[in-house]
Amino acid sequence: MIGEQYLLLPGPTPLPEQIIRAMSRSMINHRGPAFHDLLFEVTEGIRAIYKTEGEVLIYPSSGTGVMEAAVANFIAPGDHVLAVSIGVFGDRFADIAKAFGAVVEKISVPWGKAADPQLIKERIDRDIDKRIKAVLVSHNETSTGVVNDIPAIADALGDHPALFVVDTVSGLAAHPFNMDEWRVDVAASGSQKAFMIPPGLGFLAFNRRALAIHKKINNSRYYWDVSTGLEYLQKGQTPTTPAISLFYGLQEALHMMAQEGLENIISRHAFYRDLTRASIKAMGLGLLAEPEHASCSVTAVLAPPQLGANRICQAMLQQFNIVLAGGQQSLHDVIFRIGHLGYVRELDLLATVAALEIVLNRLGHPVELGTGVKVAQEYILKNQSDIAVEEGVIK
Amino acid sequence: MIGEQYLLLPGPTPLPEQIIRAMSRSMINHRGPAFHDLLFEVTEGIRAIYKTEGEVLIYPSSGTGVMEAAVANFIAPGDHVLAVSIGVFGDRFADIAKAFGAVVEKISVPWGKAADPQLIKERIDRDIDKRIKAVLVSHNETSTGVVNDIPAIADALGDHPALFVVDTVSGLAAHPFNMDEWRVDVAASGSQKAFMIPPGLGFLAFNRRALAIHKKINNSRYYWDVSTGLEYLQKGQTPTTPAISLFYGLQEALHMMAQEGLENIISRHAFYRDLTRASIKAMGLGLLAEPEHASCSVTAVLAPPQLGANRICQAMLQQFNIVLAGGQQSLHDVIFRIGHLGYVRELDLLATVAALEIVLNRLGHPVELGTGVKVAQEYILKNQSDIAVEEGVIK
Repeated sequence: MIGEQYLLLPGPTPLPEQIIRAMSRSMINHRGPAFHDLLFEVTEGIRAIYKTEGEVLIYPSSGTGVMEAAVANFIAPGDHVLAVSIGVFGDRFADIAKAFGAVVEKISVPWGKAADPQLIKERIDRDIDKRIKAVLVSHNETSTGVVNDIPAIADALGDHPALFVVDTVSGLAAHPFNMDEWRVDVAASGSQKAFMIPPGLGFLAFNRRALAIHKKINNSRYYWDVSTGLEYLQKGQTPTTPAISLFYGLQEALHMMAQEGLENIISRHAFYRDLTRASIKAMGLGLLAEPEHASCSVTAVLAPPQLGANRICQAMLQQFNIVLAGGQQSLHDVIFRIGHLGYVRELDLLATVAALEIVLNRLGHPVELGTGVKVAQEYILKNQSDIAVEEGVIK
Repeated sequence: MIGEQYLLLPGPTPLPEQIIRAMSRSMINHRGPAFHDLLFEVTEGIRAIYKTEGEVLIYPSSGTGVMEAAVANFIAPGDHVLAVSIGVFGDRFADIAKAFGAVVEKISVPWGKAADPQLIKERIDRDIDKRIKAVLVSHNETSTGVVNDIPAIADALGDHPALFVVDTVSGLAAHPFNMDEWRVDVAASGSQKAFMIPPGLGFLAFNRRALAIHKKINNSRYYWDVSTGLEYLQKGQTPTTPAISLFYGLQEALHMMAQEGLENIISRHAFYRDLTRASIKAMGLGLLAEPEHASCSVTAVLAPPQLGANRICQAMLQQFNIVLAGGQQSLHDVIFRIGHLGYVRELDLLATVAALEIVLNRLGHPVELGTGVKVAQEYILKNQSDIAVEEGVIK
């Protein structure tokens, strides 16, 4: 098929040309001065995006790796942990905590819904003897395209001493995330989402309170140990060999992100969410997430049941070389997901909406051609006064 | 300074141009058919290099990560483990086992020496009630440039049921490694050594016996869990998002390695070792490793004590842009290490030897210019009937 593939996944995301070029540089000594400077620069960059004065460590790992780091460093075996799960990755966080010996109490929210802060507040209020040591929450749940209200959950926790641990792997830099202001103690993110670089780096952030708890407790950890990480960071190094080429990409990504501006990046993702949802609704398809909790990274669309989501994804790939994500576990074949995360243009979404209309028609689910497209066009027209595209960077 | 840096570290190593190009491709869906094929191809390639019929899993991690995977999957808390350490990475393996609850008994060998199989045999013979559940050994100890005799250690273990777990992070593909023939149960390696690609991938190999033990025991693990890894591998996937760009590099590296031939690659590394050691000796410097246990990946040179190793490394960097590695821990400032691993040419070593002679003279440690160089030249001349260089690939 002619032309590049449209990769509309909630990670990995398309790579900007200049990031690919940046990653093509030669290797350097990871114990030498050049890496030292690079490590400090990108660590500061990630810290600014987390909006934290706390610590940031960068691991050679996927996002799940730093979720494991969050557990192994800050939760002890036998600790009572409240895991709030709204989907696959919420369940994963709970499973990691169990694997590291925590006593996990799970609040399972029906998939497609956000967590209710009031329910969390009620559970926390009942914990009079403060047995709960940590609360695990997903920020953006990739499997359902639902965003939890992190500041409202922080308010629900009140002055309970449990650590507030947030998985923002697919949330960070696509949604507002004010780690310190929101009183998040530990947060985990990764490279292949809003950062526009390939998978392989995990970003763990934690504050002084979390670090003090880390120093008092033990769990099975070596690779993820933050004390070792901080000790090496002081020397401008990492405890084990860093994924150098991805660091080059991260450095370039952070330059691009600084140029665009974090607030603009977040607005752009909110715009993609609104455009996508309005177009999908206009063509008569259902949306899994309610508007007030809809993700800016990924939109989950309810497939017409007689078609099934998988046939739609297959047809989009075969006819247009557009990659959408299917549904996971109980949502398999029920939803398909349109990722609009990182280095995606409004033009990509416009084309995707148009292609989807064609595919639905070909699969025997008539949609009047142009219905969704027109809505997407209107969104772009309305928005064009604010956004100008130049050299692939949206300013 | 004009010209590319000479990176003569025991990892990361120089990158071939075609591997850089391969890594510059766009992202793909890691749950789609293209990644499926890529994953199977590189898994088979790594399996062939390990010379095993066992399983191979590829992790987004550094080499230390897969050492942790080896511990978390195959050793239970409370297990008695015999850790044979001949340097920094042997100590690290013991520390990881301790961190995961093993009762670690360490045989510490003076740095610069190899482990004595007879000593291991004596300890194993005394273990009449078979309390030792695993024996941890480094194949190539990067910190000292010493290679352990893995088949002799396997013989020392005899029919004792302890798992034989080998760290061959810097050993694999630079030295003979016949996993099945040598009765190694679990082996760990990584991308940034003889594989000529950047850091960020770890390769864990294990046999059926190790897998059976894994299924019976528990430890704190989620990210490294091999059961999950094997389950996903059957579907052509990895449990968490793989480091896709490094997979592209690995695929290209395995093509290059197949073209050169594993036996030729190993011979080439042995030739580098011999050339380097003979040149260093000729210029009157001492070698840490004894000839019968000298590494094919890295040569540790004893610096003249009045100079110190660090001054030599600094001068090599400042005057010639050649990166050598210093010594670690008790060998800090005592040795410097010349890496001759992966995509290094004999020409690079020739230039390095020549530069080292100049640097020693400038630092006031007179060496007759050309002494080491001449020996290196003689080695190359003698070897040229076997080796022809074409397009950067040594055939």
